[in-house]
Amino acid sequence: MGMVGGGRGAFIGAVHRMAAAIDGQIELVCGAFSSDAEKSRLSGEDLFLPADRVYGSYAEMIEKEKALPANERMDFVSIVTPNHVHFPPAKMALENGFHVVCDKPLCFNMEEAHELAQLVKDTGLIFALTHNYTGYPMVKHAKQMIANGTLGEVRKIVVEYPQGWLSTKLEDSEQKQASWRTDPSKSGIAGSIGDIGTHAENLAEYISGLQIKELCADLSTFVPGRQLDDDGNVLLRFNNGAKGLLFCSQIAVGEENNLRIRIYGTKAAVEWRQQDPNDLVVRHLDQPMQVLRTGVGDLAAAAQAHTRLPAGHPEGYLEAFASIYRNFAKHVQARLSGEEVDPVYDFPTVEDGVRGMQFIYKVVESGQSDDKWTTFE
Amino acid sequence: MGMVGGGRGAFIGAVHRMAAAIDGQIELVCGAFSSDAEKSRLSGEDLFLPADRVYGSYAEMIEKEKALPANERMDFVSIVTPNHVHFPPAKMALENGFHVVCDKPLCFNMEEAHELAQLVKDTGLIFALTHNYTGYPMVKHAKQMIANGTLGEVRKIVVEYPQGWLSTKLEDSEQKQASWRTDPSKSGIAGSIGDIGTHAENLAEYISGLQIKELCADLSTFVPGRQLDDDGNVLLRFNNGAKGLLFCSQIAVGEENNLRIRIYGTKAAVEWRQQDPNDLVVRHLDQPMQVLRTGVGDLAAAAQAHTRLPAGHPEGYLEAFASIYRNFAKHVQARLSGEEVDPVYDFPTVEDGVRGMQFIYKVVESGQSDDKWTTFE
Amino acid sequence: MGMVGGGRGAFIGAVHRMAAAIDGQIELVCGAFSSDAEKSRLSGEDLFLPADRVYGSYAEMIEKEKALPANERMDFVSIVTPNHVHFPPAKMALENGFHVVCDKPLCFNMEEAHELAQLVKDTGLIFALTHNYTGYPMVKHAKQMIANGTLGEVRKIVVEYPQGWLSTKLEDSEQKQASWRTDPSKSGIAGSIGDIGTHAENLAEYISGLQIKELCADLSTFVPGRQLDDDGNVLLRFNNGAKGLLFCSQIAVGEENNLRIRIYGTKAAVEWRQQDPNDLVVRHLDQPMQVLRTGVGDLAAAAQAHTRLPAGHPEGYLEAFASIYRNFAKHVQARLSGEEVDPVYDFPTVEDGVRGMQFIYKVVESGQSDDKWTTFE
Amino acid sequence: MGMVGGGRGAFIGAVHRMAAAIDGQIELVCGAFSSDAEKSRLSGEDLFLPADRVYGSYAEMIEKEKALPANERMDFVSIVTPNHVHFPPAKMALENGFHVVCDKPLCFNMEEAHELAQLVKDTGLIFALTHNYTGYPMVKHAKQMIANGTLGEVRKIVVEYPQGWLSTKLEDSEQKQASWRTDPSKSGIAGSIGDIGTHAENLAEYISGLQIKELCADLSTFVPGRQLDDDGNVLLRFNNGAKGLLFCSQIAVGEENNLRIRIYGTKAAVEWRQQDPNDLVVRHLDQPMQVLRTGVGDLAAAAQAHTRLPAGHPEGYLEAFASIYRNFAKHVQARLSGEEVDPVYDFPTVEDGVRGMQFIYKVVESGQSDDKWTTFE
Repeated sequence: MGMVGGGRGAFIGAVHRMAAAIDGQIELVCGAFSSDAEKSRLSGEDLFLPADRVYGSYAEMIEKEKALPANERMDFVSIVTPNHVHFPPAKMALENGFHVVCDKPLCFNMEEAHELAQLVKDTGLIFALTHNYTGYPMVKHAKQMIANGTLGEVRKIVVEYPQGWLSTKLEDSEQKQASWRTDPSKSGIAGSIGDIGTHAENLAEYISGLQIKELCADLSTFVPGRQLDDDGNVLLRFNNGAKGLLFCSQIAVGEENNLRIRIYGTKAAVEWRQQDPNDLVVRHLDQPMQVLRTGVGDLAAAAQAHTRLPAGHPEGYLEAFASIYRNFAKHVQARLSGEEVDPVYDFPTVEDGVRGMQFIYKVVESGQSDDKWTTFE
Repeated sequence: MGMVGGGRGAFIGAVHRMAAAIDGQIELVCGAFSSDAEKSRLSGEDLFLPADRVYGSYAEMIEKEKALPANERMDFVSIVTPNHVHFPPAKMALENGFHVVCDKPLCFNMEEAHELAQLVKDTGLIFALTHNYTGYPMVKHAKQMIANGTLGEVRKIVVEYPQGWLSTKLEDSEQKQASWRTDPSKSGIAGSIGDIGTHAENLAEYISGLQIKELCADLSTFVPGRQLDDDGNVLLRFNNGAKGLLFCSQIAVGEENNLRIRIYGTKAAVEWRQQDPNDLVVRHLDQPMQVLRTGVGDLAAAAQAHTRLPAGHPEGYLEAFASIYRNFAKHVQARLSGEEVDPVYDFPTVEDGVRGMQFIYKVVESGQSDDKWTTFE
Repeated sequence: MGMVGGGRGAFIGAVHRMAAAIDGQIELVCGAFSSDAEKSRLSGEDLFLPADRVYGSYAEMIEKEKALPANERMDFVSIVTPNHVHFPPAKMALENGFHVVCDKPLCFNMEEAHELAQLVKDTGLIFALTHNYTGYPMVKHAKQMIANGTLGEVRKIVVEYPQGWLSTKLEDSEQKQASWRTDPSKSGIAGSIGDIGTHAENLAEYISGLQIKELCADLSTFVPGRQLDDDGNVLLRFNNGAKGLLFCSQIAVGEENNLRIRIYGTKAAVEWRQQDPNDLVVRHLDQPMQVLRTGVGDLAAAAQAHTRLPAGHPEGYLEAFASIYRNFAKHVQARLSGEEVDPVYDFPTVEDGVRGMQFIYKVVESGQSDDKWTTFE
Repeated sequence: MGMVGGGRGAFIGAVHRMAAAIDGQIELVCGAFSSDAEKSRLSGEDLFLPADRVYGSYAEMIEKEKALPANERMDFVSIVTPNHVHFPPAKMALENGFHVVCDKPLCFNMEEAHELAQLVKDTGLIFALTHNYTGYPMVKHAKQMIANGTLGEVRKIVVEYPQGWLSTKLEDSEQKQASWRTDPSKSGIAGSIGDIGTHAENLAEYISGLQIKELCADLSTFVPGRQLDDDGNVLLRFNNGAKGLLFCSQIAVGEENNLRIRIYGTKAAVEWRQQDPNDLVVRHLDQPMQVLRTGVGDLAAAAQAHTRLPAGHPEGYLEAFASIYRNFAKHVQARLSGEEVDPVYDFPTVEDGVRGMQFIYKVVESGQSDDKWTTFE
């Protein structure tokens, strides 16, 4: 793995490295950790990389790695930069034959999104988008329950993602995470909707197997002087007739990272909350509530395939994130060996990324419209 | 107290009687428990009432009680019938000088609502509407925190009321509660929005001290053949610029009576859930989360005034309901004695009832409209 | 009902009155609310009692009520005084033909306990002890599950009752509850073990259907200058070979009234916590955890018979307490009518009270002993 | 790192490898993964190790690695075998100059324990015992609160560790974990007390800073035919006068890995539960309950030093385990560089291991004794 971004002081780069390391399947072999060559060099040192595999730019990295013998060069590129620097390295990596793991949202705008999707299609390379929350075992189990019909027909989906860390104008401090996320030149047309709303949208569609087909949004910017939305409320209508609500907020003071989803069907309902990820609450018509737990009893094969520890040994965010990398790695290895990969080892793709970008655009469009419903094909 | 409705087999009548009895301030002295005179008589027997104080109709009760000497007759009428039988006994009671406690929603339609409000105004009598959830101690405390400015300016309100008991077509069975609630000739123009949505609206405005000024609703009827809505999702905008979400559902399979509210301000947030009513979660900017508990520490005077037991002795639904009756009784007694009542002993009034009726009408109007926002003055 | 004790400022007297009132089956008709005749009179006024039914002493009350015509006099005596004033009024009431409800523990010492049990036996009168925690619906359900064999053979019981209200020397203030409970001349030989440890013992034996046969106790007095134990840890051995732990504490700072029990069998386990009384957690061998809830699904008949409200309308401490009164009243009525009472309507008896007194004595004995095990027959 | 044990099918070996990998500070360079040389070889292949660094025995590994140039050989040995195979490789590693990480309990018997402690002392090498639960951030914070005096004087400690996985005679199946843990020739003189009771003892003493000085134990073997205890209840007395309870069980049916501790002081109390490791409940005298959360607010430096992610991104068992390795690695690196290590980066040592072994012996002794108290120096 060669990394683009994630130098000293970055948050998500370290997450990607820890996630990639856990299962012992992926080795960080090179990186262009910063657009500042000196900072990149120092970051490489921190990571025990040989000096000649630490590059001053992603372009240099891709060129020089490509020039190495096949069994020495990196197998794929991991892109952990702010949104506006997803597309250029992803494009160049694909054009030079490297598989790609990319942080979400996919890129800066729709044009980039479509071009990237086309490139993946044309090159046949493997592209994973780190909608990491789909990596949790109980998310996998919930998806399987719905696919099996255990919930009956889905009627209602409530998905919410409150955070409080942008309740004040944190971007005026030196806080790096806040500053680029609230800057339209780096983040794109949306703030909270792009940063966390897309996780919520992705999770809802992933678990339910449904697609949003209409939405009605009310976006707000509560913190004075902020340039992008920091809160959004959205009514949803799904392609099977189910109704829903999605809200995301970064001004929900005191909330940490409280992604939560409830899906009600005709026969049963599921509830999952990211801060207690090893619980899956299942409610039935006139039967006792169940709390399914990671590692307990006879869970779906997909849940078991994403569980590393016995019951009661809590698995968390890094493990779920690691599962995205592990599954991606299985596909890369299978490409080399010609083997099949069991479908339980899935991961979000460039198509999920395009849909996420479309969601951002449609929510922003709806937020500015007087029409009640905006179609989302 | 004289009761209208609440005969054998009724649910809410028994609740009103238990709630009125707890504090030893109110005595049930007479009733017209059913429009079926024999059923009324039997219900009166169950309740140890003398036969001559059990009436065959509310009209008979009001007439005959009025004819009794002042120190013998009932002090007020409690109306616990289905929605379409709120207005006639309430009107007659007021016109004959009796104070009234009435179940919610206030009545069957807007015309009745306005007439009732006018009558209360004209007679000067005391009228309480049993939006019982406002009687919980921790609801009182949350309201006080916001009034004190502890939360700063309110930015976001999320209020939800999922139930699952109407997930199937229960009204086709003999279930009495289900049948009138889903019948437009008894319930009025709304199903879930009238039955539980108004509780959510009332609670949000009561705690926050704000008013909804615009809304955008998506109402659904999921159970085939049902005549009224059984699910609703509503975007809210409040008069101070806060945004919100309200949803209610009676097809949220497996949910019991899960009324829950979260209010986020600029400085802190509160979260309260009716099924765990003695907890109030308070989140602050960068401080540890607190769980305030009924009876623990230095709570608001209004919370203490609605607490009967030491900490850790759980108080529930009946106690909160009892507080509405207890506060109403204090006002009735004060009317007689000429004393002042401390404002902590509040209760929902006919004006709250009118607002609840307007809310129902506006939500139904919005649900049928292609306009995004419907004004709610 | 005629009440002994429970005048102005008392806690448990008001609880008994509210509990007795809820179900509309019991009327407070007289009382000797204080050993101070003036205070008794004022308390009677607060309760709207006629002056001639408010007495200056329990002896006066019992004598004068007995002299009233049978259909006018009180049906039973409710004793809500401190421990050292349980026995005298109970004895006199029984000797004069009145049924008795008595607060726990049964009395001041073993001699009184045995005499009272004999009197109940000799008179054939009905005697209820208010171990109120056994009145909760989910406690009833847990008991039935074990009786049905759902748990298999019981192996381990952990019962705990932490409170924190006596963490400081509250008895030096004017706090009436604290002062008599920590005074050996009023409370008896034990502090926390008598006040709350007996509730724990009673609950464990009630739910499990087992009996403690050996125990090993470590009692402590942590607050300097206090005269009785304020903390106790006890190893238990049950008559079927099960092992257990009981602890109670009144210096567990910050704890409210956190009675909790876990019972593990060979096939399943139950967990119940008084502060969340409507939940019963059930764990099975290799099956998902269930959370049974008051009013949800097909609970035991005994649970349903102690449930007043639909699911999700939380019932609390007063309702459970009320069920003890309601069941006692059913037995009193049945005595008059000659009918049978369904065994689901049980209540703690004088025999439970004797066993509780023995438990107190055995724990104190063990606490002072160097022998590991003290037999408890 | 060179690993002893942890071949295909083992549980804890994989945990050690994942834990060591997360932070990118430790590389697995060699191993003797099984006493079966072929199995060791295959395990090494799974782990992408070169064939010449996969050894057929720990003795071969230590000898051959020692023969390599200093900058090529392993830096330390990680021992992840069953209890009876801790001592031989640990001894040999220390005698040959290698630092050691060893799974708990320290070894098979007291003689080995003392010899190992002496060896560590004599060689001056670094020895870490993986009492991994002390690696959680909120455990670090609780320890610091007590050290700071926030709790006042500690009065009561309740520590419990229920599991249910040995509720049936699992050792009769092929389940490898069950079979050696219940075999006295591999596990030593204790079952549940050694496997999990020592974790509870270690955690209680680590957080409180106190030492158990007397104990009274009741050990049981509930599953017929099992050779070692599967359940234990223990009364504790601490060196400052605090009292306590410890229980562990592997027949607590349905429990996963529910290690939990409550410590009550004169001024405040803390509660921590391993299955929700990012919560620390703090209760105060007459103040609202707080729920401190990993990453929220101003936690102790030691807590922050063991937190990898922002608040709300749950960290779990592997991360806590990884912190033991990371801290050990810091000490190994500091030994090379001559730098000081900040005391927040602590880890359990061979002395903790000796104490754990003594605890096992004292509990077993007490369990067989008729004396109430057994001294534990």
